[in-house]
Amino acid sequence: MSSIPMESSQKDMTVRRGGREARRAMRAAPLAENERPVRPGLEGGRYKPLSDAEVLKIHNAALDVLEQIGMADAIPSGIEVMTRAGAKLNDNGRLTFPRALVEDTIAKAARHFPLYGQDPRHDMEPWGKRVYFGTAGAAVHMVDPVTGEYRDSETKDLYDIARVVDTLDHVHFFQRSVVCRDLADPFEMDFNTCYASVAGTSKHVGASWVDPKHLEASLEMLHMIAGSEKKWRERPFVSQSNCFVVPPLKFAQDACRCLEVAVRGGMPVLLLSAGQAGATAPAALAGAIVQEVAECLAGLVYVNAIQPGAPAIFGTWCFVSDLRTGAMSGGSSEQALLSAASAQLAQYYDLTGGTASGMTDSKLPDAQSGAEKAYNHALVGNAGANLIYESAGMQASLLGFCLESLLIDNDIIGATQRTIKGIDTSDESLSIETIRKTCLEGPGHYLGSEQTLQRMQTEYIYPGVGDRMNPKEWVEQGRPDAIAKAQKKLKPIMANHFPGHISREVDDAIRAKFPVRLDRAHMGKA
Amino acid sequence: MSSIPMESSQKDMTVRRGGREARRAMRAAPLAENERPVRPGLEGGRYKPLSDAEVLKIHNAALDVLEQIGMADAIPSGIEVMTRAGAKLNDNGRLTFPRALVEDTIAKAARHFPLYGQDPRHDMEPWGKRVYFGTAGAAVHMVDPVTGEYRDSETKDLYDIARVVDTLDHVHFFQRSVVCRDLADPFEMDFNTCYASVAGTSKHVGASWVDPKHLEASLEMLHMIAGSEKKWRERPFVSQSNCFVVPPLKFAQDACRCLEVAVRGGMPVLLLSAGQAGATAPAALAGAIVQEVAECLAGLVYVNAIQPGAPAIFGTWCFVSDLRTGAMSGGSSEQALLSAASAQLAQYYDLTGGTASGMTDSKLPDAQSGAEKAYNHALVGNAGANLIYESAGMQASLLGFCLESLLIDNDIIGATQRTIKGIDTSDESLSIETIRKTCLEGPGHYLGSEQTLQRMQTEYIYPGVGDRMNPKEWVEQGRPDAIAKAQKKLKPIMANHFPGHISREVDDAIRAKFPVRLDRAHMGKA
Repeated sequence: MSSIPMESSQKDMTVRRGGREARRAMRAAPLAENERPVRPGLEGGRYKPLSDAEVLKIHNAALDVLEQIGMADAIPSGIEVMTRAGAKLNDNGRLTFPRALVEDTIAKAARHFPLYGQDPRHDMEPWGKRVYFGTAGAAVHMVDPVTGEYRDSETKDLYDIARVVDTLDHVHFFQRSVVCRDLADPFEMDFNTCYASVAGTSKHVGASWVDPKHLEASLEMLHMIAGSEKKWRERPFVSQSNCFVVPPLKFAQDACRCLEVAVRGGMPVLLLSAGQAGATAPAALAGAIVQEVAECLAGLVYVNAIQPGAPAIFGTWCFVSDLRTGAMSGGSSEQALLSAASAQLAQYYDLTGGTASGMTDSKLPDAQSGAEKAYNHALVGNAGANLIYESAGMQASLLGFCLESLLIDNDIIGATQRTIKGIDTSDESLSIETIRKTCLEGPGHYLGSEQTLQRMQTEYIYPGVGDRMNPKEWVEQGRPDAIAKAQKKLKPIMANHFPGHISREVDDAIRAKFPVRLDRAHMGKA
Repeated sequence: MSSIPMESSQKDMTVRRGGREARRAMRAAPLAENERPVRPGLEGGRYKPLSDAEVLKIHNAALDVLEQIGMADAIPSGIEVMTRAGAKLNDNGRLTFPRALVEDTIAKAARHFPLYGQDPRHDMEPWGKRVYFGTAGAAVHMVDPVTGEYRDSETKDLYDIARVVDTLDHVHFFQRSVVCRDLADPFEMDFNTCYASVAGTSKHVGASWVDPKHLEASLEMLHMIAGSEKKWRERPFVSQSNCFVVPPLKFAQDACRCLEVAVRGGMPVLLLSAGQAGATAPAALAGAIVQEVAECLAGLVYVNAIQPGAPAIFGTWCFVSDLRTGAMSGGSSEQALLSAASAQLAQYYDLTGGTASGMTDSKLPDAQSGAEKAYNHALVGNAGANLIYESAGMQASLLGFCLESLLIDNDIIGATQRTIKGIDTSDESLSIETIRKTCLEGPGHYLGSEQTLQRMQTEYIYPGVGDRMNPKEWVEQGRPDAIAKAQKKLKPIMANHFPGHISREVDDAIRAKFPVRLDRAHMGKA
């Protein structure tokens, strides 16, 4: 078993010798934190698709929707806690929410809560306009980018994705991204989804459950990993991705039951409303946002009615339909607008906002894929979305996951973060003295100037997969495209990176108690 | 000879029969202007990399640079007109520019001048925060995206690029993009570059010249095409891309001579400063912008000293170096910041701003290429740059041009424009009534709702090359990637689109007088 640290320290991995000594040397030499061009949690907000007045219009419309139309299909326990808090059950069975209830809920809701990693190095503080990127999804296929083969995803794929994410600088958290289709039993699937995720990475994990019992068993495992329930509650390192709503404006009953267990179990909840504009949400983009915001506010009332101040993520994941077919179009430019606007609403409420970006409609990591992911990330990131889900590895509007894309997308996120960091306009950066010296005293260029050497790391980010060779060098290297370059980067990670943050002893105890379906042989362990 | 109109009317071209009748039918059925999701000249400005105070800091630093350091290597005629206007020639031979001179120049400079097409349908009004996209460059290779072959570019390639641009909805102007390497004689090269461009498209054209005599001959041709010199001066449909500066802060002597001829000949001038941060401009991004702005302001003084109010484009094209090698990195995220910030400076001066975006470092239209182009376009476009050059077709940081990329990039620009258009937050768009009807009275979804059908075209843009098939359909179609899809789109354009906006009579006259090196056989003409 071995471990490879952050990607920035493995720049030339493929040309170096393998072996423990070499890796130790690499680990010793990453860039100091203050020398890095980007870091997790940079502050966005320089892109504002909506004016302040427009944000307010959407907020008010959402309150109207909650007060006048409300939510259908609440479960009895939900009706009980929410009506006790002030919601009203109408004759038509819908729960409606008076403005004052929603406003009071927003005022008392949890804000500024960290999302923890098993390793504190990966803790996140996703509030204000700070931006973090992670995976997510429930893809049912793994994609071979060369043959175009789409095969069923399995538990070992989920683990592999997690351990690759564990090595990537720019993917800050890991949410379950593929479905373990090798596991037919729903309990085994839920339990092993959580197990494979937390075993594969020490970054913050998101997962989901279809039944409260599955979640309870998983919580028991998480207590074992944390050391105790108390320790788990101090630093919950897994959040629940909860589709508590079936848009438009209906509670999802099983999900609500799981939501109640998560809140009481100290697990942060991603209140995920995934309406699809033109299908399950209005085709007018503003209306789609109104509906999403209304739904997530209803979820917020629910969580705070169960336990005031319980940590919840405002998960406005408004998707897009191709109106010609009704199919989802995750790579569209309308998607970028919806997700970026979502970020502004969460900022307006000063809540931790989660939204989706980086979902291409392309089946392969080709130019379409790169473009769709990149314009979405550039805008959603610069809008200052706190938690950006689905940000790496997805293809075919969330139907497929591709490991090579994960590495390519890590570059896109790195570049996006560099744009979020923005332009330093300190006097030293304005460079009048540097220009004067270079033009009047110096060599007439800046290639070797003091400033250039100082800024080489802090001001500039370099891609991991992307290349900047000139055509001649590139021909000499065999004309690799992005897929070929990603494959080359992926190979040593797959061969060598098996995280060891869960001890053998704890793992033995988990395996003794629960039906773990991930072979140790696949985890680099004897 | 035949003609295909705007791309939006040729959606299913490849599955339709060829022939004049079919094309006539297609031409009759484009979307009405007010039904299109995007149009040329949408207003950006929702992304602001710099605060207002930071813009002012850069402006003031640029004025300091011009006053204290100034420009070297002005030609005698330039020294004469600029010193007459108020510039000072120092003992060290540098021209310096008092603040008042620069401020007065900004006040009296031409603003709000249209850039004309030969066809008035393509006229542009590039001021304020309106955004137009076009080609540019001086690539020396044509790229085969399948084999990766880089071959020398020729005159017929330039013509082919122009006529493909002529068909694309989202590429609004055509600037010379490749060098005619088949022409060894500098006069023939300059003249035929202009000829192939204006013959290939009726959109506004940009070109450049190395010698005033070449420009004078080209102007004569342009008068013939316009009908007379007077008609040319009324609607100049070609602008001069003029690299009047060799950064840092040196005038380029040959270019200055051509600049003087263009200004006097009624040709708009793109004052192009192409410093490269870390090589010919400071590595600190803010300093690179300061230097660019200073240089373009010097150019503005020059133009206005020759002829007050002559049309000039503020061309801050600040490029990026990969500081590890010194090579240009057009696809970098630092590039997006530089070009977006440039747009803000032009807006501050209320001048027509031109900058570069869409230059990938990748040698092929792969995922890296798509991503680098897209995050640049998303940010530079949303910053509200008026004229975005290099926006389609380029590979290898401007060394190669790829026709398939041109079509792929047209999609990226379309998507970018959709994000620039933003979110309509009218009461109707907020959709409270639509939500109420759907949830309380309706079918519980929005698929066939009145609003959905109304918004299908106006609110949503559909890609031309990009596909949204599900994996099953895509497998049935033979698993095409973006390159394969672009090839399929390109084929009928190459076979059929030979623009006829220059009459045979005028063309005969041009050919009788000048050494046209583009065979009529290549132009679809007998």
